[in-house]
Order: sequence, then structure tokens, then C-alpha cells
Amino acid sequence: MPQDKTLDDLFLDTLKDIYFAEKQILKALPKMAKAAQDPALKAGFEEHREQTEGHVDRLEQVFEIIGKPARGKTCEAILGIIEEANEIGDEFKGTPALDAGLISAAQAVEHYEIARYGTLKAWADLLGKKDAVKLLDATLKEEVATDQKLTQLAETSDNAKAAA
Amino acid sequence: MPQDKTLDDLFLDTLKDIYFAEKQILKALPKMAKAAQDPALKAGFEEHREQTEGHVDRLEQVFEIIGKPARGKTCEAILGIIEEANEIGDEFKGTPALDAGLISAAQAVEHYEIARYGTLKAWADLLGKKDAVKLLDATLKEEVATDQKLTQLAETSDNAKAAA
Repeated sequence: MPQDKTLDDLFLDTLKDIYFAEKQILKALPKMAKAAQDPALKAGFEEHREQTEGHVDRLEQVFEIIGKPARGKTCEAILGIIEEANEIGDEFKGTPALDAGLISAAQAVEHYEIARYGTLKAWADLLGKKDAVKLLDATLKEEVATDQKLTQLAETSDNAKAAA
Repeated sequence: MPQDKTLDDLFLDTLKDIYFAEKQILKALPKMAKAAQDPALKAGFEEHREQTEGHVDRLEQVFEIIGKPARGKTCEAILGIIEEANEIGDEFKGTPALDAGLISAAQAVEHYEIARYGTLKAWADLLGKKDAVKLLDATLKEEVATDQKLTQLAETSDNAKAAA
């Protein structure tokens, strides 16, 4: 019966959604690092790939806390965002605007994650799962910091200036 | 030749992307307002629908500034985000967790828009289009404010508490 569904179910559904998303991002980041022209952006994508492994690990700890197996659930949103990133990569390959396009795509990814981790953290709090709140907050802070670094790169990148 | 593509092209592509997205959001918001249980959330979705009409109007002004016809381009990201919102609406219909799910979906929408408007504003600045910067910044501020309101509703909603 639908009436049985609670915030616990919604929390688990959303956890599976972001777990799937993080694994897709793990696959996408090496391609973005390879495509990037600016060495600082390339290094940024590589560093964020390592960080993302930590995010997957934290999510697995949250699954453990709620006593559920770590499983993903197809997340159409991240698939759409990554598809747009690939389109930009193809359409702007070899142009001075490529890095600006890659940064834009990466910021769409970060904001999706910020939305999901913000929600999960708030729900973990409502559900009284303090250890989960800490884990989700740690990743949330890293995603926000990554988004801020990308904004800086967008503003200072020589490539972005050259393309304008 | 791809080498011809510049930041102007990327700006136009992304403008078409968010123009398409805003029109999809205009269609989705009345459904979300209808589904919401908490009157404050219902009113919030209705108010944001009106605001979104203003966002479409501002985008049309930006198209005018750059001398291009206002046209959308399929945005797979927003289609994926809205698909997830519809799934939550269906799966949690009639449950106390529905409003929490709707708020979560709306925040994913807001963050997609915050990413896109942030990028467009930065590029308009690099491209020296000051009037476009003002228009994009006005919408960006409204999207950020809406996201903050949703966070408040998520924390205070009686429904969210009841579901936990």
C-alpha cells in the first residue's frame, strides 16, 4: 500500500539515486580531464575524481548505517547532465571555448549533487541519524568547495578570456 | 570548421538550453502545486510559477540583446530532473512523505538553474554584455531565494515531521 511509504523510503530512494550518480561521475571525470586544455582545469578534474571515490565510500557507510545493501537506482537527471557535457565536448572540441564549456558542465554536475546531499542531510537529521548527517555533510562541503573552485577557474582561465 | 566556435556560440547554446528548461518548468509547476499537501508549499509552487514567467521574459530580452531569435534547444538534464520529480509524485502519492519528495525535486530543479544562470552571467560579463549580466543576475538571485525558501519548508513542514 502506498500509505506505508515514509521518509525512510524516500531517504533510501534518494541515496540510491546519488550512489548511481556518483558512479557515473567517476566514469565521466577522466574523460573531462583528458579533454581539458588548461592544466589547472585538468588537475582539478583529476583531483575531484579522487575525491569522488571518497564520496562513494561515504555513501556505502550511510547504506551500512541504515542497514541496507549499497545499490544504485538509475538517475535520469545525471544521465541528462552528462549527456549535455558530452555534447559540449564534441561540439567545442578544438575550439578556445572548450574549457569554458567543460567548466559549465561540471558546475551543473556539482549543483545536482549539492541539491541531493543537502536534501539527504536534512532528512538524516529529521530521522535522527547523526552519523549519516556527518558523512553527508562532509561530502556536501566538498561539492560546494569544488563548485567555488570551478567558478574561479571560469573567471581566471586564459582560455575563457581568449575565447571571449 | 569547429575552430570558428567561440564563447558567443557557447553562450547562445546555453541560453537556448535554459530557455527550453524554463518552459518545461512552467509546465511542471502547476502539477507540483496540485500535488502538494502543505498549503504553504502549494502557494510556494504557484508563486514560483508566476516568477518563472518573468524568467522566460528576461531570457527573451537577453536573446534580443545578442540579436538572436528566442529559441529553445532540448535540455536532457531538465527532462531527467522532471522525470524524477514525476516518479516521486507517483510513488509517494497519498503518503506523508510526498511533500518532502516534491521539495527535494524542486531543489534539484533550482540547482540546475542556479548552475546555468551563474555560468551565463559569468560569460555575459566576459563578453562585455552588461545589460545581459543584470537580467541574468536578477533571475539568479530569485532562484537562490527560492532554493532557500524550499530548504526552510523542508525543515519546518509538518508533513516532513510527520513522515519521519
